[in-house]
Amino acid sequence: MTETREPTAEGVARAARKVAEILPVTPLLPLEVDGRTIWCKAECLQPVGAFKIRGAWHRLTDLSAEERPRGVVGVSSGNHAQGVAWAARRLGITAAIVMPVDAPQVKLANTRALGAEVVLYDRPGGEDRDEVAARVCAERGATLVHAYADPWIIEGQGSTGIEIAAQMEQWAGGAPDLIVAPCGGGGLTAGLALAAPDARIVPVEPEGWDDVRRSLASGRIERVAADAPPTACDALQTPATRPVNFKVLQARCPFGLVATPAEVRAAQRLAFAKLRLVMEPGGAAALAAVLAGKVELGERTAVVLSGGNTDADAFAKVLAGND
Amino acid sequence: MTETREPTAEGVARAARKVAEILPVTPLLPLEVDGRTIWCKAECLQPVGAFKIRGAWHRLTDLSAEERPRGVVGVSSGNHAQGVAWAARRLGITAAIVMPVDAPQVKLANTRALGAEVVLYDRPGGEDRDEVAARVCAERGATLVHAYADPWIIEGQGSTGIEIAAQMEQWAGGAPDLIVAPCGGGGLTAGLALAAPDARIVPVEPEGWDDVRRSLASGRIERVAADAPPTACDALQTPATRPVNFKVLQARCPFGLVATPAEVRAAQRLAFAKLRLVMEPGGAAALAAVLAGKVELGERTAVVLSGGNTDADAFAKVLAGND
Repeated sequence: MTETREPTAEGVARAARKVAEILPVTPLLPLEVDGRTIWCKAECLQPVGAFKIRGAWHRLTDLSAEERPRGVVGVSSGNHAQGVAWAARRLGITAAIVMPVDAPQVKLANTRALGAEVVLYDRPGGEDRDEVAARVCAERGATLVHAYADPWIIEGQGSTGIEIAAQMEQWAGGAPDLIVAPCGGGGLTAGLALAAPDARIVPVEPEGWDDVRRSLASGRIERVAADAPPTACDALQTPATRPVNFKVLQARCPFGLVATPAEVRAAQRLAFAKLRLVMEPGGAAALAAVLAGKVELGERTAVVLSGGNTDADAFAKVLAGND
Repeated sequence: MTETREPTAEGVARAARKVAEILPVTPLLPLEVDGRTIWCKAECLQPVGAFKIRGAWHRLTDLSAEERPRGVVGVSSGNHAQGVAWAARRLGITAAIVMPVDAPQVKLANTRALGAEVVLYDRPGGEDRDEVAARVCAERGATLVHAYADPWIIEGQGSTGIEIAAQMEQWAGGAPDLIVAPCGGGGLTAGLALAAPDARIVPVEPEGWDDVRRSLASGRIERVAADAPPTACDALQTPATRPVNFKVLQARCPFGLVATPAEVRAAQRLAFAKLRLVMEPGGAAALAAVLAGKVELGERTAVVLSGGNTDADAFAKVLAGND
């Protein structure tokens, strides 16, 4: 239903123009790693604390006059939820968000605070979130706004790459030749691939949730194992990518990487101390892989810090640890 | 020695042009407070984690050919130290920084990591930091770069206000009519006053360290009491403002405000949850006063979040608390 067309580079450029009208450019912060400078795109500073606001804005502003009054339904562990809720409130569109019962409290609270209705589903119990969302859409005649398997969402997230390119031209002397980004379902990474045709794009997933890495290796869409371990990277807990994403990723990403829980925590601590940024675990996955030396750096490397919505207790524990 | 001329609005404009060549504009983040939007200038995202890099850059780039090889001496609890060290390294100038033995470890470590020599003095024991700095300057023929009582430093810090005005013109529909800022010796606040002649400027100090507030009330420079309480706001622990600062402040600030320790912690927690920013206590003082309802908001209110250098243990304790 959501894969009605292919996402395009022209769509990314159009999304970037729309986003530039309402959202200030997030900073691209230099960070020294082993004597070299990498450039960190601080998407955790978006109004909802994550890049997801971009795709939601691109999708909702393109709804037809018939679709708008029937509202939208989002499916999300939290950041896409807040992005859809933010865009919907600004446009006066009704939004319902299907969220897992075990999402971080801060994400549930923030989504409700933005005026969206939250419909909970039983993720730990194995309930299928897409089935729940399809049912809610059918009941209301609403438009499904998928978190990643949607050409508008991919194009909107890709606007991150347009900003990175412009900022690196000014401050780093040229366009990025490598972009490392956290990867859940592949919306952001596919968008970055369309935005930056000359850069290597490296997706990073949490340990045990590396379906995109395995899919790139096998050449077909693989699913996360049913007994996947728990992960603090709730934003990257997607069971599988989709054809609309995988087609782009397969053409542009030779491989994917995995970040371990300890590597993610180390990245959160470094971002705290050196960038003064609050990163949620999933948002720090790409930085984690870079700091762990898992990526051969480019001449001009960009790393996306994709989100910063984390509960205070969880973050305090990360800061207090030293593993 | 450092008050050889008056700081001017033209000097602020010149500093802003110099700063714009080397430092990307820090974001101005909207924050809803009681249904109204305030605009938070995230100076904690500067490369050294504080606005102090501005004044240091303006001062050091204006050193004469005779002064440069003799080096500079800074006096600082930490953020000015890092600003001077950063600018000195970039310009190839030798820097020694006089710092208190009880400065946060992260500030001492970061200053040394930037290549500066650290000369410790006994703040808890009552040693006078200006005397120590004067001695080091005399020994080396170096130029003293005072943390606030210096026209270049005031002008450089004022470049923050030039950026705020441009950003608010674009996103808030006009220049700020109120700027609330943390205040130690009055370098930043005096610079903001010169940068924004049409805005009310409100300095905020920590409880017990409100010498500027008392000075504005009495009309003459007052000192912090010898038995002032300990404060987490180490960046704002200055014993007294100086004539070069006070002259500007007296002309523009009808009053100053105080933030209590609990108000500062609440502001740090809010910045964590809503802005995804790491604020040090002193950097959060102005936001603390605004959140506590101590300032009558303007039509377009800017709040400076001045620094984010804090130890992980201290920040974890703030997050875990709920007072």
